Amino acid sequence: MLQKEQRSCFEIVSKFGEARVGKLHTNHGDYETPVFMPVGTNANVKLTDTMRLKEIGAGIILGNSYHLAVRPGLDVIRLHGGLHQFMGWKGGILTDSGGFQVFSLRKLRDIGDDGVLITSPVDGSKMLLTPELSMEIQSTLNSDIVMVLDHCPGPEDSYTESMVSAKRTYNWAMRCLKHGVNEHQLLFAIAQGGVYEDLRKLSAEQLSQLPFDGFAIGGLSLGEPFEKTLYLTQITVSALPSENPRYFMGGGSPALIIQLVEMGVDMFDSVFPTRLARHGAALTWKGRLNIKSARFKRDLQPIEENCDCFVCQNYSKSYLHHLFDRKEVLGGILLTYHNLHFMMKFMNKIRNSIEDGTFKTLKREVLDVYGKGKKADLYVDAAISDNNNGRYN
Amino acid sequence: MLQKEQRSCFEIVSKFGEARVGKLHTNHGDYETPVFMPVGTNANVKLTDTMRLKEIGAGIILGNSYHLAVRPGLDVIRLHGGLHQFMGWKGGILTDSGGFQVFSLRKLRDIGDDGVLITSPVDGSKMLLTPELSMEIQSTLNSDIVMVLDHCPGPEDSYTESMVSAKRTYNWAMRCLKHGVNEHQLLFAIAQGGVYEDLRKLSAEQLSQLPFDGFAIGGLSLGEPFEKTLYLTQITVSALPSENPRYFMGGGSPALIIQLVEMGVDMFDSVFPTRLARHGAALTWKGRLNIKSARFKRDLQPIEENCDCFVCQNYSKSYLHHLFDRKEVLGGILLTYHNLHFMMKFMNKIRNSIEDGTFKTLKREVLDVYGKGKKADLYVDAAISDNNNGRYN
Repeated sequence: MLQKEQRSCFEIVSKFGEARVGKLHTNHGDYETPVFMPVGTNANVKLTDTMRLKEIGAGIILGNSYHLAVRPGLDVIRLHGGLHQFMGWKGGILTDSGGFQVFSLRKLRDIGDDGVLITSPVDGSKMLLTPELSMEIQSTLNSDIVMVLDHCPGPEDSYTESMVSAKRTYNWAMRCLKHGVNEHQLLFAIAQGGVYEDLRKLSAEQLSQLPFDGFAIGGLSLGEPFEKTLYLTQITVSALPSENPRYFMGGGSPALIIQLVEMGVDMFDSVFPTRLARHGAALTWKGRLNIKSARFKRDLQPIEENCDCFVCQNYSKSYLHHLFDRKEVLGGILLTYHNLHFMMKFMNKIRNSIEDGTFKTLKREVLDVYGKGKKADLYVDAAISDNNNGRYN
Repeated sequence: MLQKEQRSCFEIVSKFGEARVGKLHTNHGDYETPVFMPVGTNANVKLTDTMRLKEIGAGIILGNSYHLAVRPGLDVIRLHGGLHQFMGWKGGILTDSGGFQVFSLRKLRDIGDDGVLITSPVDGSKMLLTPELSMEIQSTLNSDIVMVLDHCPGPEDSYTESMVSAKRTYNWAMRCLKHGVNEHQLLFAIAQGGVYEDLRKLSAEQLSQLPFDGFAIGGLSLGEPFEKTLYLTQITVSALPSENPRYFMGGGSPALIIQLVEMGVDMFDSVFPTRLARHGAALTWKGRLNIKSARFKRDLQPIEENCDCFVCQNYSKSYLHHLFDRKEVLGGILLTYHNLHFMMKFMNKIRNSIEDGTFKTLKREVLDVYGKGKKADLYVDAAISDNNNGRYN
């Protein structure tokens, strides 16, 4: 721990109000924040290989430690020397702790103070996931950023339930800290508290007293009203230390990101761009396009005229429409590339706007296009895990 | 026609016995033969974009004119200025005539001397496909190599039926020739004759009298015994002019290719490498691997150790096994890349072996590995069209 305190994993490079540009140092490279992290359940970002991820400019990607522990199993990943080698990715990897499965697999788990007993939806096997086991799993995966095991309540949980889960999350965070991580791994805590202001504040404050490398805002973007997401994030962020990176878990729509960046959030992950892509939705600076719409059948223009991604350089909306019409998977492959490329450019624009003081203008532009309250622009059924056995959904 | 006779589309560069290395001049580049052409039904080679196709070294790819005429429709392709622009492909394109649908959609068609009335399996629409309409369609697609409309019989068709279809194929070829193609397009005839030696010979001889740019061997690799495929191809090839390119339609296993090259066949197309890939089969110099097999679960080696494709450079068999186990489409994407890369290297080896006189050795090596009579090594259900509405099959 001493070493880590000597050299912080995070530097703030520039600020505009509470919004900040930072540099996050990991064992696999330094990354500028605010950063968007594509989600790689099952050790792959759906329909995208790691060569392309690098080409797109992705820096850190997400891995799901519970899913990987079930399949292929830790022995296989250990043989490769870690998740990076297993999936052929030289950039950063953040692994979740399995805590989200406490929420998403609620019918298949039994939770207690010791840990969570999870029944695998894949093979019915049972795993008692404790904070210590989660640390062990993430140590074997050897990710760059490790998340503590947390108890993630749902937005409909009562005050008492949310208090219990926040308290349990704190105790588990202590146990994770005590167990420790590999030398070069960073350890992030997760603030919970359900939809209750005072619990949110308390959870964040208590965790802030502990020597974590970064802090996450968990348990939001799970179906509660959008305004509530913003408000509760604000409460949480205000109670977190300003010198550490702040990570909003499971949110990635442009309208959400731009407003959370303004509050001082630095890291985001979501299946938003990749899942939309598989459903035929393309992200542009003029809004979201449904490429399956008949109006694109004869549209010779690319998705976005000024976009320098190879999809926009080579293919018309008409061609992409055709691929989706014929249910050719290539349509999803190409839109996934474009959407991830869009997200990387989007984060780049955000960082530039913080540095040159034009953040407010950018925010207004983004909200004009993506903030009109269409639900699909704000969330992508964040409550549903992207791990649906790889079906083309 | 005079212009075409002045400058032939085909030069023979080198020979070893009947096997030859040639150069095929098209409106989109010159290509060395023997050449393998990946199949791009629905204006895409499944799971592979055209950037990757180029990277792999694909030269000419196949387009299906009947399918494209139904979806997206010729008006859409005309708007783009042709199939190349529509699908973003700068290499060569050979389009089939719709003749194979005469065979593959036999329940949905009604054939007469005028043409074929085809009921679309997509939308139930009816099209009377005549030789002239096929030329019109391919003229709109503006492919580099145009195939005549033919009547493709099945291997179980009687002598009389096969004679009728061969005669009709000849008459239709004359009508295609008379109708003509675009200035820069090449026009290939298709020899038929079912499984009957004398009909095969007659069909090839009669077509050879006509000024086509190239000649195809059609109606084989449709379920007849492998030895019969070889024998009937030999009969056909012997009756075709030696100075024109010869194209074996719908066959692409290594064991088939190497034996047909020896007879003097120059061009091949098949869904073999791409369909195998989607089913988890990888092509290697030591034979076909089923990556789904449990024995690869902990195999840290790439598919092929000396392979320079990015899949072998970055991913272990264990990782690919995991992707297929989790039904992640990325598995099929990566194997498709590797298998097409293998086919390009394979054709390159064949050309080199003809030039340096080591063809016999290469043939023995290939047959040792791929010629042991396992059906899946020889054919890939060639009788079934790859156009199954894009399902991941």
